[in-house]
Amino acid sequence: MKLSRVGEDALLASLLRELPGSRKLIGDDCAVVEFMGASNLLVLKTDCVVERIHFASSTNPELTGWKAMMRSLSDFAAISAVPEFALVTLIVPAARLTSWVRALYRGLKRAARKFDVQIVGGETSAVRGPVVISVSICGFVERNRSVSRSGAKKGDDLFVTGRLGGSLRRKHLRFVPRIEESRWLTKNFRVHAMMDLSDGLGADLPRLAKASKLGFRIDKKALPLSSGATINNAISDGEDYELLFAISPRERSRVQRQWKKKFPRLPLTRIGSFTQQLNTSTTLPRGYIHFK
Amino acid sequence: MKLSRVGEDALLASLLRELPGSRKLIGDDCAVVEFMGASNLLVLKTDCVVERIHFASSTNPELTGWKAMMRSLSDFAAISAVPEFALVTLIVPAARLTSWVRALYRGLKRAARKFDVQIVGGETSAVRGPVVISVSICGFVERNRSVSRSGAKKGDDLFVTGRLGGSLRRKHLRFVPRIEESRWLTKNFRVHAMMDLSDGLGADLPRLAKASKLGFRIDKKALPLSSGATINNAISDGEDYELLFAISPRERSRVQRQWKKKFPRLPLTRIGSFTQQLNTSTTLPRGYIHFK
Repeated sequence: MKLSRVGEDALLASLLRELPGSRKLIGDDCAVVEFMGASNLLVLKTDCVVERIHFASSTNPELTGWKAMMRSLSDFAAISAVPEFALVTLIVPAARLTSWVRALYRGLKRAARKFDVQIVGGETSAVRGPVVISVSICGFVERNRSVSRSGAKKGDDLFVTGRLGGSLRRKHLRFVPRIEESRWLTKNFRVHAMMDLSDGLGADLPRLAKASKLGFRIDKKALPLSSGATINNAISDGEDYELLFAISPRERSRVQRQWKKKFPRLPLTRIGSFTQQLNTSTTLPRGYIHFK
Repeated sequence: MKLSRVGEDALLASLLRELPGSRKLIGDDCAVVEFMGASNLLVLKTDCVVERIHFASSTNPELTGWKAMMRSLSDFAAISAVPEFALVTLIVPAARLTSWVRALYRGLKRAARKFDVQIVGGETSAVRGPVVISVSICGFVERNRSVSRSGAKKGDDLFVTGRLGGSLRRKHLRFVPRIEESRWLTKNFRVHAMMDLSDGLGADLPRLAKASKLGFRIDKKALPLSSGATINNAISDGEDYELLFAISPRERSRVQRQWKKKFPRLPLTRIGSFTQQLNTSTTLPRGYIHFK
């Protein structure tokens, strides 16, 4: 079977299932592991952006660099971890102008600086083909603040930060991962499960539900829409890089009240709840799927 | 200026020079940093292999996976660090057969298992273009055992492990990084400076000398040649993945004697010494340089 007929989820899942001894560590946004003698857990994540998939050939290279760094950092937001170090691999046609590469690095560095991340290593290679920028991030999370996808409970409220849909018009090149918001949430509330929305609510929410072995109910009319976006955009567009999280309804009013004080310019919206049914089939169209 | 007219060394050096606060961490084989509260240092490295540069399209994918993992691990050998976790990014044409990808992963996993490394994360993306496999490794080194490129002293002996040259015929797909040897060396000797030979002695040795601000003298006739290789091959072919290290001549006889007992099947050869002169110009032809 060709790769194009296998979804990325299915391929990764099947490859990673075969990795001995690592089952606990993966299938989530980041790997969370022990580092000998340290009280905090070590957090590792890699992600990449590819020309003509994640950015256009004509995209401002500084924005491309920004996006490449921020995509990996968004996964740290997803589990409430603190990023510290980045490794950057740049695959680029030899004919590309050095000035383009320099602008790309400016974007990478600006994004790293925003979260006090140090770029501590780099690798470049020349190819014929699209530009690929792969960013690996290393950082930490306190043992009692790491949030996975699998801890949601029946009846939990489902909240989403910001607004959804239409990211490809502008936001996907300029977003700020919700690290500050995520750290604030786990400092002040018991967040049961969390993820960042990268492939669209329609693809990502079923993953959260599946990991928590729950069903879900969404109030489509409650979805916070980006300016100009429809409900379908909010479900299917992808690249929102907002947080989706589950929290007990007993915390609902407190989180809503304190959020408004702490982040007055960023909406926090209750979009539904988790239900017991294991059947996660839904009328949500699927979000963006790689390899299709 | 186009990238093809800028050496990879020069490009990386100039990009990394601009990274604020990270000057101490880079330009070496790995990044070595603090991890809060841990007694050991955290070690990070990323490397990648690219179709038609590091392996042929017809290469057995299992060997390709082996090489992709081992290249990054060889950098851990270079500084005498212990690898623990790997992140793998796979850029592959959508039309590539799933069986090819599975075989590639078998090679990656077999290589990781050889050194008890856990693959804890992965990312795949489909492109039109060559296959790229990027591997980031995370591990540790004890504070008193990390070896850099910059510690060599005037008069130090220069040793090399194994045999040089002709790697492209076979070895570059099957090599075992000298991690065990490197760890044994730093446990038992004061190694002043070390690196792994990836671009050929003619390119790599000047880097070691430059980092240590020394000149060097090589006895070309002493170079340990792979079967069928010439002296020029040993200097220029690259992809040897052997250790090159500097050690006091006072340790010479002890390291030679104990090495022979510990690694009876792997040659250890004194190929020259470090001299004071800062002028590193030499008759050595340059090794393999990317972007040329």
